[in-house]
Amino acid sequence: MMTEEPGQALPQDKTAVNEMTRQRNPGPPRRGMRASLDALLGGSIGKLVERIRGSARPASSDSLLDDAAALLSLRARASGPTLASAFFDRYEASAPAVRQSFLAQLNAQNPRDAAAIDAAVAAWQQDRDDRAAARLSEASESPCARLIRVLNLAPGGTRRLIAMRADLLNAPDMSAGLRDLDREFEDAFSAWFNAGFLELRRIGWDSPATVLERLIAYEAVHSIAGWDDLRRRVAPADRRCYGFFHPQMADDPLIFVEVALTNGLPRAIAEIIAGDRPAMDPQQASSAIFYSISNCQEGLRGIPFGNFLIKQVVGLLKAELPQLQQFATLSPVPGFARWLARNHEGEPVPEGDALRRIAAEYIATARDGRGQVLDPVARFHLGNGARLEAAHANADSSEKGLRQGHGVMVNYLYDLSAIEANLLRLFELGEVAISPEVREMLRTAKPAPRKRSDLETQ
Amino acid sequence: MMTEEPGQALPQDKTAVNEMTRQRNPGPPRRGMRASLDALLGGSIGKLVERIRGSARPASSDSLLDDAAALLSLRARASGPTLASAFFDRYEASAPAVRQSFLAQLNAQNPRDAAAIDAAVAAWQQDRDDRAAARLSEASESPCARLIRVLNLAPGGTRRLIAMRADLLNAPDMSAGLRDLDREFEDAFSAWFNAGFLELRRIGWDSPATVLERLIAYEAVHSIAGWDDLRRRVAPADRRCYGFFHPQMADDPLIFVEVALTNGLPRAIAEIIAGDRPAMDPQQASSAIFYSISNCQEGLRGIPFGNFLIKQVVGLLKAELPQLQQFATLSPVPGFARWLARNHEGEPVPEGDALRRIAAEYIATARDGRGQVLDPVARFHLGNGARLEAAHANADSSEKGLRQGHGVMVNYLYDLSAIEANLLRLFELGEVAISPEVREMLRTAKPAPRKRSDLETQ
Amino acid sequence: MMTEEPGQALPQDKTAVNEMTRQRNPGPPRRGMRASLDALLGGSIGKLVERIRGSARPASSDSLLDDAAALLSLRARASGPTLASAFFDRYEASAPAVRQSFLAQLNAQNPRDAAAIDAAVAAWQQDRDDRAAARLSEASESPCARLIRVLNLAPGGTRRLIAMRADLLNAPDMSAGLRDLDREFEDAFSAWFNAGFLELRRIGWDSPATVLERLIAYEAVHSIAGWDDLRRRVAPADRRCYGFFHPQMADDPLIFVEVALTNGLPRAIAEIIAGDRPAMDPQQASSAIFYSISNCQEGLRGIPFGNFLIKQVVGLLKAELPQLQQFATLSPVPGFARWLARNHEGEPVPEGDALRRIAAEYIATARDGRGQVLDPVARFHLGNGARLEAAHANADSSEKGLRQGHGVMVNYLYDLSAIEANLLRLFELGEVAISPEVREMLRTAKPAPRKRSDLETQ
Amino acid sequence: MMTEEPGQALPQDKTAVNEMTRQRNPGPPRRGMRASLDALLGGSIGKLVERIRGSARPASSDSLLDDAAALLSLRARASGPTLASAFFDRYEASAPAVRQSFLAQLNAQNPRDAAAIDAAVAAWQQDRDDRAAARLSEASESPCARLIRVLNLAPGGTRRLIAMRADLLNAPDMSAGLRDLDREFEDAFSAWFNAGFLELRRIGWDSPATVLERLIAYEAVHSIAGWDDLRRRVAPADRRCYGFFHPQMADDPLIFVEVALTNGLPRAIAEIIAGDRPAMDPQQASSAIFYSISNCQEGLRGIPFGNFLIKQVVGLLKAELPQLQQFATLSPVPGFARWLARNHEGEPVPEGDALRRIAAEYIATARDGRGQVLDPVARFHLGNGARLEAAHANADSSEKGLRQGHGVMVNYLYDLSAIEANLLRLFELGEVAISPEVREMLRTAKPAPRKRSDLETQ
Repeated sequence: MMTEEPGQALPQDKTAVNEMTRQRNPGPPRRGMRASLDALLGGSIGKLVERIRGSARPASSDSLLDDAAALLSLRARASGPTLASAFFDRYEASAPAVRQSFLAQLNAQNPRDAAAIDAAVAAWQQDRDDRAAARLSEASESPCARLIRVLNLAPGGTRRLIAMRADLLNAPDMSAGLRDLDREFEDAFSAWFNAGFLELRRIGWDSPATVLERLIAYEAVHSIAGWDDLRRRVAPADRRCYGFFHPQMADDPLIFVEVALTNGLPRAIAEIIAGDRPAMDPQQASSAIFYSISNCQEGLRGIPFGNFLIKQVVGLLKAELPQLQQFATLSPVPGFARWLARNHEGEPVPEGDALRRIAAEYIATARDGRGQVLDPVARFHLGNGARLEAAHANADSSEKGLRQGHGVMVNYLYDLSAIEANLLRLFELGEVAISPEVREMLRTAKPAPRKRSDLETQ
Repeated sequence: MMTEEPGQALPQDKTAVNEMTRQRNPGPPRRGMRASLDALLGGSIGKLVERIRGSARPASSDSLLDDAAALLSLRARASGPTLASAFFDRYEASAPAVRQSFLAQLNAQNPRDAAAIDAAVAAWQQDRDDRAAARLSEASESPCARLIRVLNLAPGGTRRLIAMRADLLNAPDMSAGLRDLDREFEDAFSAWFNAGFLELRRIGWDSPATVLERLIAYEAVHSIAGWDDLRRRVAPADRRCYGFFHPQMADDPLIFVEVALTNGLPRAIAEIIAGDRPAMDPQQASSAIFYSISNCQEGLRGIPFGNFLIKQVVGLLKAELPQLQQFATLSPVPGFARWLARNHEGEPVPEGDALRRIAAEYIATARDGRGQVLDPVARFHLGNGARLEAAHANADSSEKGLRQGHGVMVNYLYDLSAIEANLLRLFELGEVAISPEVREMLRTAKPAPRKRSDLETQ
Repeated sequence: MMTEEPGQALPQDKTAVNEMTRQRNPGPPRRGMRASLDALLGGSIGKLVERIRGSARPASSDSLLDDAAALLSLRARASGPTLASAFFDRYEASAPAVRQSFLAQLNAQNPRDAAAIDAAVAAWQQDRDDRAAARLSEASESPCARLIRVLNLAPGGTRRLIAMRADLLNAPDMSAGLRDLDREFEDAFSAWFNAGFLELRRIGWDSPATVLERLIAYEAVHSIAGWDDLRRRVAPADRRCYGFFHPQMADDPLIFVEVALTNGLPRAIAEIIAGDRPAMDPQQASSAIFYSISNCQEGLRGIPFGNFLIKQVVGLLKAELPQLQQFATLSPVPGFARWLARNHEGEPVPEGDALRRIAAEYIATARDGRGQVLDPVARFHLGNGARLEAAHANADSSEKGLRQGHGVMVNYLYDLSAIEANLLRLFELGEVAISPEVREMLRTAKPAPRKRSDLETQ
Repeated sequence: MMTEEPGQALPQDKTAVNEMTRQRNPGPPRRGMRASLDALLGGSIGKLVERIRGSARPASSDSLLDDAAALLSLRARASGPTLASAFFDRYEASAPAVRQSFLAQLNAQNPRDAAAIDAAVAAWQQDRDDRAAARLSEASESPCARLIRVLNLAPGGTRRLIAMRADLLNAPDMSAGLRDLDREFEDAFSAWFNAGFLELRRIGWDSPATVLERLIAYEAVHSIAGWDDLRRRVAPADRRCYGFFHPQMADDPLIFVEVALTNGLPRAIAEIIAGDRPAMDPQQASSAIFYSISNCQEGLRGIPFGNFLIKQVVGLLKAELPQLQQFATLSPVPGFARWLARNHEGEPVPEGDALRRIAAEYIATARDGRGQVLDPVARFHLGNGARLEAAHANADSSEKGLRQGHGVMVNYLYDLSAIEANLLRLFELGEVAISPEVREMLRTAKPAPRKRSDLETQ
C-alpha cells in the first residue's frame, strides 16, 4: 500500500469512493456547517451513535427509519460493522408489525434522487452512448440497495438480511412499498447467492445436529417424522442427501435434495421411504432418484440457485458411482387435482391408466397466464432441462398426495446430454420434453375437452 | 418444492426468471422459428456447444466475442457452469493481446438496449415514481454485467474473473471500451467482495506453504527476502499477520497486514524488521504496530475492503491481549519527496526536526485536485478515521524510503472511539486529525511558502 | 534410510526385530525345512492366507484358534494389517458362544514358553541384576500380548479389540482362561489409553449426530429420553458436555461428563434436568456442577482414564469462565440402600436430617474387604482427591434413586489445591476428606451400631 | 458411574488400582506413619510439590533423580499431568551432561523389587501355570516403565519423552545403565507407535510450513537444498510425499517417503531430482518409484513402523491411479564400497556391468554376524518382502553415492502378491528374492572369491 505504484500497492486508490460513500461524492467541505458540526462532534453525533449502538430495546418504526437514514448518511467506514450490527439488534427486538411498518416505508423514505435521474436522462438523450447509459444506471440505483450492502457488514449480516426479507414476504398485505423494497433485496441476493459462491456438501448422519435438525424443519415434500426418520433418510448406504451452503451460513443449508439409489425407476414413494427395509449396496444401484427437494430459506424465495443443484449432484454421484445409468426424480404433481377439478368439473376422477394419462397431459400441456408450464414442480424440472419420463397412479397415498395430485407421481429424467435441446424446445417452441412411452400414451388418449382456460397465475 | 405453498416449497416460483433469462422475458414461443430451431437442435446448436466446450486452444478475439454472445443467448441454465468453464479455458489459452482486444470490444459488441432505455425514460418522465426509476435502473443494466455473473458460475470463476480484470487493467492503453467494461467489473466485485463476505484469518508459520509463498510475492512495502525472512515475520511470538480471504479463494489472501507487538511507538522500521532480535512476551506488549499492508490481487484494484481490515484486527488483538493500549502504524510517506521537490524547488532538503515538521505539514495540508488528502498512504489511514500521531526522521534508510520520503516515517493512531469524529472532521470540514504533539510542532513552524498549486492527480 | 549412519538414516536398524518377530529371533535358516517350506510356498501357505483372507463366514472356535496361531507364526510384516483385518471379519461373523469359547481357550493354547522362563529364572538366580530381571520380564510375556498388538494393525483394530474384550467380559462364566486373557487386554489398553493420548473435546449441539446419539445410548446416570432431552443437556448456554476421545475412535467418546453452570451447589437433581427452564448467563455462574459421568466402552472397563477427565474439564472451564469459584458434583449414592438394609436390618429407614447424616456416615466410613471405600461413586470421586461437601435428602425421586439411595444425593467438591493432601490422607491414613459442615453433622450424630461386617466385595 | 452395575456405570471399578498405584497395592493404612504424614501434609509435601512445580531452572542429576522418585511415590492421580510437565521443564532446562548423568543412573536408582521377583519365582517353580507366569511378568516390570507412563501424562509428553530418549542415544558412552533404561523406552514406544495408531498423510505444497520445514531438516538420502528444491519434490503433479504421523505430534512426521511417478524403472537418481523438468500427467504413469525414505525422530530409532509405510502408500496410489503397474524403489547401496574394499582388497574397483554384478552379489549374499542381510537398505526392503529387481552403474554421482556405493543404485520391487513368499524364503531359508534378470546376471558371473568372513555387525 505504501509504495508509489498505485495499482498494486494501495489498498484503495479510490479510498474516498468506498462502499459507504461511493454514491455520493463528498465534494469539498461544506461551508457554514462548522457550527452544526461542532455540535455533532460535541454532542449529537455521540447521541446518534449511542442510540444506534444502544441496547437492543424494541423500537418504533419511526426510530428505525431514523436509524436507517443515519446509517446511510454516516461516513462510518470502519464503524460500519458495529453500527449495522446495532441496527439489527434494535430491529430484531421490535414487534413484527413495527418491523413490517418500517419495511413498508423504507423505500419511500429514501427515494432515488430525481434530480440526478433527470440529469442522467438528459445526458442519455444527448449522447446515447454507453457512458450515458451507465450514468443512468448509477443515478437510478436505490438508496435501499446501498443500505442493504451496509447492513451486510454486520457479523451474520447476510443471515439477518434474509430474515428481514422473510418479514417482508410475510407481511399481511404486500403493499407497493414492500414490493419496491423487495426488488432491491432480490437484486442483492441474486448477486450474493450466485451459484458460483455456493458450496455443495453431502449431509450425512455424521453432520452436526445443528444442520440435521434443519432438515426436519425444512423438508417440504415428504415430511420427516423425527430423528429416527431422519436417520433413515441420511444414514443408510443407499441414501444420500446434498445441500447448497453459503459461506456465511455454514450450518444452514439453502436447499437440499434427498436421493435414493435404486434399481430402476420407482413407481411409488412407499418404495423409498419405507420404515424398515434392507439397504442395497450402492455399487449395485443403476439409478439415482431425487425424491425430495426442499428450499430452506423463506427469505431467499425466488432467488435462482436450485437449477444447478441437481446437475452438480449428478456430477458427484457419477464420480463416486460410475455404474449409475439413470438420474431421475420421483415427484408429486401438486397442481393436478385443482386443474382437474376446474377443467373436468362434475366428472368423476378417473383411475389407473386413465388417471396417469390425464396427469401426463396436464403436465405436458397446461400453461399459466404467462405461457409457462402450469404445475410448479413440473415447471422447475422441465425448466431445468429434464423430460417427463413416466407417470404412476396410486403412487402417493398420503393425505396431501391424494388431495393435491390424486395419488399420482411422475418421474422427470435428467439426461445431461439432452438438457440444452430440451430447454431450447421448451423456451423457443413451448414444447415439453417427454419420453417415447409418455408420447405413445398421450397419442392413444382422447384429448380431454377443456371447459375453460387454464390461464391462471400460480 | 412439491407442495402447493408457493413460498416455501418451490425452489423457484419464478423459475422462468432465472439468472440467465431474468433480463429478457422469453415470452411466448416465437412462431416461424421452427425451421431454424430444428437446425439448431440437429446441428448448429451442437456445434456451438462443441466449440465452446472444445479444447482449450488459443482463440481469436472475434471467436471469443462470438462465444460470449453465445453464452448470453443460450438458455443454458444447468449447463452454465460447464460452458462458462469452457469459455475461460479458451480465453486463458489465448495470447494477452487477443484477450485485451476481446475485452476492449466486449462492451461495445453487447450494448445496452437503447429502445428499452428510451421506453423506461418515457415511463419515468411520465410517472416519476420509484417503480419507473427501478425500471430505468433495470433497462440500463449492461449485458456485460450479466455475462460476468454467468462466468462466475464456472468452478474457480471468481478467481478467473479477477485475472480477467487484471488483463484489462494491464492493457497498454486504457481505451473507452475497457473503461466501460471495467465499471461492470467494479460493480460486480464490489458486491461480491463486500467485507461481510470476507473472512479474517491469522496467517502463521503453520499456514500452508501455498498461502505463505504469496506473502513473499505480494509484500509491497518492506519486501520479504525469502523463506527465512518470512519466518521472522510470522513465526515469532511477538509478530502477527492477518489476511482477508474470500471463500472462493481459500489459499489466496486479498490483503494482508503485518503486525509487531512492541512497547511504545517505534520510531524506525529497523526496530521491527531487524534480522536477529529476541522476541518479547506478547503479554508484556503495550502496542500493536501495523507496519505493512499489502493488496494481493491486482484484479481487485479499487475494490474497497481494506478499510475494515485494521478495525477487525484491532478487535482480534484486543480479545487475545487485553493489555494492549495503543494501535498504530509505522508508515512510509511515499508522496513526500515529490511534493517537496515541487513546492520547495531548489531548496536543500531539510534535516531532523525540520524535516519531520514539513513532512507532517505535507500530510496535514496537501490536497489533490479533488480536495482529497494528497499522500496515498495518509489518504488511506486518515480516510479510515486514524489520526497522525508522530513523524520520524531517519526512520527508513532503504533506497525506496529515501527516494520517496527522504527517510521519514510516521505513525497513524487508530483510536476506535475517535474514528467517527475524525472522519466527520475530515469529510465535512476537510481537517486532518492530528495529535497534540504534531499540532504543537506545526504551530511553532513557519508555514512553508507554496510555490504552486498542489493540485495534481495521483 | 540409505546412508551408513545407522541412527538417523535407517527406518529400522533392527528390522529383523520387528513387531511380529521380536519375541522369537529367527536365527539362521533352519536346515531340513526345505521340503515343508517348498510345500508352504507352493501350496499350504497360500491356503493359509486364503483361509484367513477368506470371506467373513462364521467360523468355529477351533478354526479361529488356528487362525490366531497362524497370525502369530507368520512373518507377515507388510501383510499384517490385511491379515489382522481378515481375522476380525471371521471373528465378528461368528456366534457369540463361538467367540467366547475361542477367547476362553486362547491363552491356554498359546502358553508362555516354560523353558524360556526357566532359563530366565536360572539367570536371575545367578546374576540377580537388572538385565536378568529384564530377561525374566521378556520371557514371561504372553504370546497373547503379541497377538493383541498384531490385531491392532487392522484398520479400526483398536475399536475391534475393545469389542472383543466386551465379548470376554460378557461371557456367562468368567473362567480362569478368560481372566488370564483379560490381564493381557488390560495391560495393552492401559498403555494405549494412557490419558496422555486422549483428547478432551467439548460435545455440543453442533457435534455430529454420530457422536450425539452415543450420549443417548451411554448415559448411565440420568438417562436421556431422546433428542429433545439431549438438546436440553448440550445446547443451552449454561450447560456443557465434555468427552475424552481416542484418535482411533474419533466419533465415539470413551467417557463423558455433563456439567451445569449454577449459582451455588444444587441440592436436588430436578434443579438441573428440569424440562423447561431459562438458561442463565454463563458469565454470571459461580459454580460448575458435574452431574453425570458415564463410561461409554464396556470393553474398556477398569482402564483408568476417568481420573483426569474432571481435572482437565475444570482447567477448561476456568480458562473460559474465570469467575467460577466452585467445582463440585451432584452425585447419587448407589450403594447406600443396600448397606443400610444390611447394617440396620429391620429398622425403619430414617428421613430428613437423620437420613442425610447416616448417608454421610456411610460414605465416610463404610469399607469393602480390601479396605477401600465401599460406595463405588464415592470411591471414584474420593479416589480422585475430592472431598464430601454436603448430603441432601429428597434429592432424587427417580425409581433408581429411591431404590438404591433412598433419594439421597451428595456433593463432592474438587478443590485442586487440596487434592494431593486429600489423597495422601485417604491412601495413607484411610481417612475420607469431608467438609467442616459434614464433620459437624457427623460429630453430633450417634454412631450407628454395626450389625455385621461391611466387608464385601462389590 | 453412579449406579451399582459395575461394568457400564463405573468409570473405574478398580479405581484404587489406577495407573499410578497399580503396581503397588496401597494395602491398609500403615500404622506409625501418622506423625510423618502430618508433617507431609503440613509441610514437606507442599515443598516437594513446590520443588517439582518450581521454575524451570537447571537442575543437578541428583535433584532430577529425587524428583523422579517423588513422581513414582506420589499418589498424584489428578496432579499427574501438572507434575509430569513440571518435571520435564526442569529436565529440559538442565545441561546435556546433567541429563545424561540422570538417565544413566535412573534405572539403577529405581531397581525392580528383588524380593517380589523371588516370591514370583518361587510361585512359578511351584505352580508353573499361566497365572504364576503372569505374576512373574508383573513382578519383573521395571519402575522406569511406570515412570515413562506417568511422564507421558504431561501435555506434549510423548514428544518430550522422544527427546529424552534422543538424549540417551546421544550419550557419549552407552553405559549399561543407559542400555537398561533404553529397553524400557523401546518397549513403551513400540506399544505407543504401533502402526495401528499412526496416520498416513500426504504431504504437499499446501501442507503447513511447520511440516514442510521438517522435510528439509530430516531428508537423509538426497538432501533438500531449500524451499525451492522442496517445492520441486512435493508440488509437481507427478511427485508425491507421504508421512506417518502420530496423533500427539500432528505437525511432525515420524517417517516420510518421496515418490516419483514415471514410465518404467529409473536407472539413475538424476532422472528424478533434476532441477528443471516437465511434469508428466499422473494418469499416464506406469510406475511409482520410492526414491527416498527418511526417519525423522532420532528418539524413535529402532521402533518398527517403517515396514507398513510403503505398503500403505502403495494402497493409496493404487486407489488414486489404478493404471499403475509397478511399485519399486531407486535405492543406494550404502554398505557396498566398504564390503568391496574388505573383500577385494587391493583389486581395482570394477566398472559398468561388472560393477553392477558384484553389487547385486553383495546384496544377495553378504550377511552380518547374526545371519542378516548386510546392507542396511537392502535389509530394510528385503525384510519388507521386496525383491532385488535391477542394479545400475553410474546411477548416483553425488560425493556420498560414489564414496559409499561407487555410484551404484538398485531397484527393489514391491509386488504385494509375492511379499509373504519372499519373506518366508528370506527368514526360513535365508534366500534373498531376486528378479530373473538379476538371477541370470549372477549366474553368468564368476563368484567373487571371499578373502575373509563378511561377518560383522553393522
